[in-house]
Amino acid sequence: MTTAPIRLYMTMSVDGYIAGPDDRAGQELGRGGGRLFNWLDDRHGTGVNGQVFGEAMATGAIISGRRTFDLAGGWQGDHHNGVPIHVLTSRPGEQPAAAPGTVFYSDLTACVHDARAAAGDRAVMVHGAAAAQSLLRAGLLDELELHLVPVLLGGGRRLFGDDGRRVELRPVRRLEGRDVTHLRYEVVRPATG
Amino acid sequence: MTTAPIRLYMTMSVDGYIAGPDDRAGQELGRGGGRLFNWLDDRHGTGVNGQVFGEAMATGAIISGRRTFDLAGGWQGDHHNGVPIHVLTSRPGEQPAAAPGTVFYSDLTACVHDARAAAGDRAVMVHGAAAAQSLLRAGLLDELELHLVPVLLGGGRRLFGDDGRRVELRPVRRLEGRDVTHLRYEVVRPATG
Repeated sequence: MTTAPIRLYMTMSVDGYIAGPDDRAGQELGRGGGRLFNWLDDRHGTGVNGQVFGEAMATGAIISGRRTFDLAGGWQGDHHNGVPIHVLTSRPGEQPAAAPGTVFYSDLTACVHDARAAAGDRAVMVHGAAAAQSLLRAGLLDELELHLVPVLLGGGRRLFGDDGRRVELRPVRRLEGRDVTHLRYEVVRPATG
Repeated sequence: MTTAPIRLYMTMSVDGYIAGPDDRAGQELGRGGGRLFNWLDDRHGTGVNGQVFGEAMATGAIISGRRTFDLAGGWQGDHHNGVPIHVLTSRPGEQPAAAPGTVFYSDLTACVHDARAAAGDRAVMVHGAAAAQSLLRAGLLDELELHLVPVLLGGGRRLFGDDGRRVELRPVRRLEGRDVTHLRYEVVRPATG
């Protein structure tokens, strides 16, 4: 990896869910989905969970899907440290009034280009299932940091789709935190030439 | 755990699949599903993959779903070391002629009782998505040993269902093998009384 990575950060149950059923405004994590985020109680601690959270907060730009952005209330324009927020949307004509530093894109490549430029030598944080799937499909995601939580939710919103596209991963790092295993993978690109 | 556990052994992609699309006789692992089983190349080695495979082969009985049993050709009556094979089926009236040591059950509790008795102080191996889901739903599964393989298959047969039932897990062990992370979880039973 010669440049800083475009890296997905997502918390996922062992059965693949990132939110419980019926995630919507007022119930952003879905029914029972809050269970996934116990590990964030340690986010300011000195242990593994604090380390991983600190890394996420050291990223230099955000790429989010529109749905995640809306559910999060656009993070009031500041996800962390005022880094720019790049929102992928298939409805570019329906953009809400956005805070400074928030930009909407329908063009994946332009979005990734701008996020990378904004982040400089820092990683770019990708958030949301739709953004992850779009970037994976386009071959634009470099890494996945999955926070795997020891629960079967039994339903809800899945992180990964079923578009039939196979993606090879290479394990990069595993860290064991309280109530979570942090698994980092690099996306393996097909060799060219 | 005072008695030997009923333990699921399954290889799963990071996106939750245990076989590629269109798994059927003649293509038992589905399209591209063979990718999941590279780690078994080391099954007779001295490393982590050999250790975990050896543990699986030290189980004292098998519980399998009928579909898995059929796809595997009933293991010709001998999955390993001649241990008895207990097959869960919702079609008890349609049993094929089975090898000695293979018994069909429509009653989950009876199946688990008999498998446990046959295994004695050894663990019982559960295999197949349907068997796993049925036993989880009935509160009869004690442990999961998931062989997590660094690939997104993008489609196929999922290990876990979406019946809305939440199951708490407790991490027991994590081993890193070549091309696989072996994750063992204990199923947490609700406290009674």
